[in-house]
Amino acid sequence: MATTVITNISSLVTNDPSLGAGPLGLIEDAAVVVDGDRVAWVGTVGGAPAADERVDAGGRAVLPGFVDSHSHLVFAGDRTAEFNARMSGRSYSAGGIRVTVAATRAASDEELAANLRRYLREALRQGTTTLETKSGYGLTVEQEARALRIAAAQTDEVTYLGAHIVPPDHADDPAGYVDLVTGPMLDACAPHARWIDVFCEKGAFDGDQARTILTAGAARGLVPRVHANQLSYGPGVQLAVELGAASADHCTHLTDADVDALASGDTVATLLPGAEFSTRAQWPNARRLLDAGATVALSTDCNPGSSFTSSMPFCVALAVRDMGMTPDEAVWAATAGGAAALRRTDIGRLSPGARADLALLDAPSHVHLAYRPGVPLVSAVWRRGVREL
Amino acid sequence: MATTVITNISSLVTNDPSLGAGPLGLIEDAAVVVDGDRVAWVGTVGGAPAADERVDAGGRAVLPGFVDSHSHLVFAGDRTAEFNARMSGRSYSAGGIRVTVAATRAASDEELAANLRRYLREALRQGTTTLETKSGYGLTVEQEARALRIAAAQTDEVTYLGAHIVPPDHADDPAGYVDLVTGPMLDACAPHARWIDVFCEKGAFDGDQARTILTAGAARGLVPRVHANQLSYGPGVQLAVELGAASADHCTHLTDADVDALASGDTVATLLPGAEFSTRAQWPNARRLLDAGATVALSTDCNPGSSFTSSMPFCVALAVRDMGMTPDEAVWAATAGGAAALRRTDIGRLSPGARADLALLDAPSHVHLAYRPGVPLVSAVWRRGVREL
Ligand SMILES: [Zn+2]
Ligand SMILES: [Zn+2]
Repeated sequence: MATTVITNISSLVTNDPSLGAGPLGLIEDAAVVVDGDRVAWVGTVGGAPAADERVDAGGRAVLPGFVDSHSHLVFAGDRTAEFNARMSGRSYSAGGIRVTVAATRAASDEELAANLRRYLREALRQGTTTLETKSGYGLTVEQEARALRIAAAQTDEVTYLGAHIVPPDHADDPAGYVDLVTGPMLDACAPHARWIDVFCEKGAFDGDQARTILTAGAARGLVPRVHANQLSYGPGVQLAVELGAASADHCTHLTDADVDALASGDTVATLLPGAEFSTRAQWPNARRLLDAGATVALSTDCNPGSSFTSSMPFCVALAVRDMGMTPDEAVWAATAGGAAALRRTDIGRLSPGARADLALLDAPSHVHLAYRPGVPLVSAVWRRGVREL
Repeated sequence: MATTVITNISSLVTNDPSLGAGPLGLIEDAAVVVDGDRVAWVGTVGGAPAADERVDAGGRAVLPGFVDSHSHLVFAGDRTAEFNARMSGRSYSAGGIRVTVAATRAASDEELAANLRRYLREALRQGTTTLETKSGYGLTVEQEARALRIAAAQTDEVTYLGAHIVPPDHADDPAGYVDLVTGPMLDACAPHARWIDVFCEKGAFDGDQARTILTAGAARGLVPRVHANQLSYGPGVQLAVELGAASADHCTHLTDADVDALASGDTVATLLPGAEFSTRAQWPNARRLLDAGATVALSTDCNPGSSFTSSMPFCVALAVRDMGMTPDEAVWAATAGGAAALRRTDIGRLSPGARADLALLDAPSHVHLAYRPGVPLVSAVWRRGVREL
């Protein structure tokens, strides 16, 4: 297998404190050797072993590819007019998520696959080398299973979110819908997913329903993750911790008890600032979580309704500006934090044995992701050792 | 001269209400014909005349190239550590703008030119086809003139900002520095610039000093523009209007009288949300200005201290999220508004006779600039009729 040395790296984020300075394990004047799809060696440039191929990073920064642990990208349809109306202060009569459900149901497999491929590619160009995505716009047995099959063909991190909303056709019988989600729909979906998720929120699924759904999924080998405490205080976060969920996502409205639960449990707090940005909502308080000792991840929540960004650099910049994170903490959360939220140890770090998922910035430091907001700074990406751009 | 037709445009922003719908003059299913460096024809796709070359826009949106009417890009040196400390809540002893002044003075002409070229290219990749830039990090006769010569070699829109701060070497004699700025420095700089600017703010130049400087510049044929009311209330905005300045820039702290002055005069209110983003400051209220009838432009203020973004799409997204602009208003402000702030009628619009400066988005509508924040949506740019990417 061919080896490549990437040399002349001004600043390398390894996320391995044993290899460099601080929590980011920063190495200055660094090099990385890639062997096949793995990192074989990292260190200061003078010590780098020989390799078959040599890439000059030009005195720029390298970090692990971003791990975007929360997106909703198996969908069809357009909601531009709804966004435009919301941001223009005009009322709009369309049905929000129901529009996406109807369009997704009506789309062909190939349309949905092409859509997902496009957004994965777009994310990759912005440095994202691992992207989780969910079902949740099908909401029938066949449609949810189809969405997961399509997702699984393009990413390893697939989440069954039959419990996204109670669909209009079950509006009068939410209990019947929970039976469907935990019964025939789970049977059809479990083989195609790694995770099970519930939107635990007023107007969606309450704590008891969420517990029933997540427990049923866990019994089928799916690991829980929870949409929790986004729009209001509620039971989602503590339920997530109690059930050993990998992640509680959003965490915008937290009591002290919620923060304590996240700090003492193994559940990652995944913050999704794109959602607060695009809905003009209150920011989650990352500082409070970090100070309490919780593990924080950042993710895009990319979806056509509430957060249509695929940009992890943008989320880093927002987290620093508005959520009390330092640039170092935000970069960690967007890489190692995302990996923790997906319970992955092979990504989100650049140390020997890790997957060779790297982003090269057109900047001397990872701090520029916050210092230069909106600027497309990712100039090259390797995924599993293959240079993708 | 060869003609090109760009066809299959889902939505075309002309900024000419006589050509299409609303203030943006929107045309759906549109085509544009470019003849040399000019727009020769726009309309619905069926009516397009024949051309030598044909480009298929793929059902995506086209708008005028962004006009970034306010930047500070003749500089050298690095202030990453200062930004990092500010955003991490750590004190930092460095000298802010003085660091940039020292590094700029020490840099070679070629270094400064290469730096500027790099940022112009970076802005172009994000759709900016016209970019104003300023001196203001030299602050001696020779250094200010040098900065303007270097800027003028790369852009038509060059601003003399000797009155950026009172430099350390004149700290005890600000009146002497004003004499320099209006005397020998103006003599050396006027031939290389179109505009004169003053940072009118507590700690920089007061209203009387600003009036003296702008009046002296105007007598030498330079048209005033003013850094006004950024950090506090002050005389800058009303002075700008009184002197017939092309633009009052920042406009963050405005009294009702300031708003009235802008609404009744010809001075454009140029808002720079990147600065408020990167300094965690209060947002300017675009809605108040628009409702009063003022003309509003958006610009990046790209500089290494307070706003290191070169991204006009990012500024559009912030203006919509946090400054009360609709997506249509923000896109207008970033194109036609910037042109108005530079008193240009040949750019910022796509109607016959205008310069062929166009951006093609990887999206069906200009609304996506706000709907998809942080995502690099600009997929092709023409400048003066030449395809640049
Ligand atoms: Zn979500
Ligand atoms: Zn400025």
